[in-house]
Amino acid sequence: MAKIQPAGGQSLLRLINSVAVLSALREAGPATLSDLAARTGLSRPTVEAAVDDLVEQGWAEELQAGAERRVGRPARRYAFRADSGYVLGLDVGAHRVLGVLADLNGRQVHTHETRVDPQLDAESRLSVVRKMATRCLSGGGVPRSRLMAAGVGTPGVVARDGTVTLSTVLPGWVRLPLARRLGRSLSCPVLVDNDANLAALAERSHGVARDVDDLIYLLIGRRMGAGLILGGRVHQGFGGAAGEIGLLDPKKWEHCRELLLGPATTEPTVEHDHQVTERILTAARGGDADALGIVDEFCAVLAQHAAAMTLTVDPEMIVLGGGLASAGDLLLPRLERHMDRVCLRTPRLAASTVGQEAVVLGAVRLALHAADEALQQQAGAPAPT
Amino acid sequence: MAKIQPAGGQSLLRLINSVAVLSALREAGPATLSDLAARTGLSRPTVEAAVDDLVEQGWAEELQAGAERRVGRPARRYAFRADSGYVLGLDVGAHRVLGVLADLNGRQVHTHETRVDPQLDAESRLSVVRKMATRCLSGGGVPRSRLMAAGVGTPGVVARDGTVTLSTVLPGWVRLPLARRLGRSLSCPVLVDNDANLAALAERSHGVARDVDDLIYLLIGRRMGAGLILGGRVHQGFGGAAGEIGLLDPKKWEHCRELLLGPATTEPTVEHDHQVTERILTAARGGDADALGIVDEFCAVLAQHAAAMTLTVDPEMIVLGGGLASAGDLLLPRLERHMDRVCLRTPRLAASTVGQEAVVLGAVRLALHAADEALQQQAGAPAPT
Repeated sequence: MAKIQPAGGQSLLRLINSVAVLSALREAGPATLSDLAARTGLSRPTVEAAVDDLVEQGWAEELQAGAERRVGRPARRYAFRADSGYVLGLDVGAHRVLGVLADLNGRQVHTHETRVDPQLDAESRLSVVRKMATRCLSGGGVPRSRLMAAGVGTPGVVARDGTVTLSTVLPGWVRLPLARRLGRSLSCPVLVDNDANLAALAERSHGVARDVDDLIYLLIGRRMGAGLILGGRVHQGFGGAAGEIGLLDPKKWEHCRELLLGPATTEPTVEHDHQVTERILTAARGGDADALGIVDEFCAVLAQHAAAMTLTVDPEMIVLGGGLASAGDLLLPRLERHMDRVCLRTPRLAASTVGQEAVVLGAVRLALHAADEALQQQAGAPAPT
Repeated sequence: MAKIQPAGGQSLLRLINSVAVLSALREAGPATLSDLAARTGLSRPTVEAAVDDLVEQGWAEELQAGAERRVGRPARRYAFRADSGYVLGLDVGAHRVLGVLADLNGRQVHTHETRVDPQLDAESRLSVVRKMATRCLSGGGVPRSRLMAAGVGTPGVVARDGTVTLSTVLPGWVRLPLARRLGRSLSCPVLVDNDANLAALAERSHGVARDVDDLIYLLIGRRMGAGLILGGRVHQGFGGAAGEIGLLDPKKWEHCRELLLGPATTEPTVEHDHQVTERILTAARGGDADALGIVDEFCAVLAQHAAAMTLTVDPEMIVLGGGLASAGDLLLPRLERHMDRVCLRTPRLAASTVGQEAVVLGAVRLALHAADEALQQQAGAPAPT
């Protein structure tokens, strides 16, 4: 894993200063030594020594002076090198595995997707994931040593140590120490979280919930689940089981799923699901009474579960994500009407704008947090929030 | 309000240093100048100047050297003066108002309780609260200028600005900008929160939930409500309505209340309530089948609501507080059995150990946070978490 190193066995203090200067460069963009001294409160010689270390190790670079300053010697300017480290985001589902390699600014460098057999056993699926990581790194031309962290989203309950403790979608995952296994393969910190949680994170970073600190993300598609962001952070719960609201009334929840998405028992193909759903949605949009009835019943059950969560945490917004996000026109007004009957204040309802890549983009975001933390912890400084 | 002031128009930097030294003194206890220099990373002359400022303004004091050091000149030691500022906690309920004056270490200096008519209008109740504040200050011999903050707990939904937006127990409170009105009277920051939230905070500071970061507090007595601590902080929700789980099925919730606590419609006296409850609990402990049936039905309904909250946030612990906390022996095992049927993992269940003063002690804690924040913000530094 890439690390900030004090050149030639220097002191911890010099390392701390390097991290402070690096943080200032990342936040402020290109800056002169004087800018950096002002931002960090460090002396100019200290900043200069730190910058020298950072340039030598590839974390920062000196920018070429622009042509605009012709009088006097232009002050040297330095910039953070976003390509000094990389992170990997992975969305490991039943039917597909999606990977995104990104630089430390979150810019996507390489993406790759592969379809997998939902019946695949755990070891074979793990091997697909490893190959995906290798493929993304080689596709982006990035050596493994520059990979600073990986984030993984997967269906199921994920304990804080990255072990899957329950998954109806991927039963083979249960008791698998996913974070540890992948960490060993990738030689970097690996963080694993529930897919709905990571989709929520992506929606807050790139989507409709930007700057919303308290939100519930409803993942509504073949997989139905909920992810929570509370106080600006993913809320996993003590055992990783936050948002498992489907258990409140499992029969009703399953019935709700079947209404719009076809029966779960026959292990439906993706195509079959889509056909059932699209047929109903199209008919409902055309005013068909039966189809509208189905849509309304679906919304009534969903509203009951969303209301239970809303009465518990009172979020600012509920985001409808997953395959049915595109049916927001039909679902959101009905969901709102049913929730209004129960809630003191129905939160703002919105359809996801991140789309089908929400989970993998949330995984990238998780990995970026981990990379930041790794950088900060090297110097014993607190990670930025 | 008491403030740290740089002596004689000194620089912001000196003020920042004073706050850093003050924080170190509060955390570490009595310390020498060298200790403080080591803890803050400041130079000894800087620490000395800061300590001089703090002593001059009454925030710190020099301790008398003990007799144990006879060789050489003993190093001077300084201590934070917890009596340099005070906070007030207030529990404003339907039937009583409770006040606690505490120093900056949270030590109770004076407490006072007064019973009030539940029908009292808002202005009269406000006047009782003001008198309570005056009474606590004079009882503790503390001048109003030393009051740094007040915390207030009250039934109902409290918006972030301290306005009560809904209260079935105190309907007169609705739309009252409680924090602003009391802030004007007390000339210090006033923070208002829902009573169950503050009881949860007290349980985490002094009670059975010490060091538990994610917990739900069930306030079960004449007033039934829930308070949440998530990630170590009170979770109020976007509109202050987190924990209003009773609305999930209001009829069932009210029926549950009536089973054990007597009818709400007849505006029962405290004594009447207690008699009904105690009669049933005593009979149940004696093995009476009817009484046990009532207790079990009560637990079944409570479990349903607690399960909805648990499936949403997956807390580590649920604390049973309020008047029925003393019936934990009867209620907790039954609550657990019913929750086990629904939850993936039923959280640890425990009876409150803080008791009837939970709300006011939580209010003191809230005021202490506010006092810390005020101190830190004076220097633009982040408040300790």
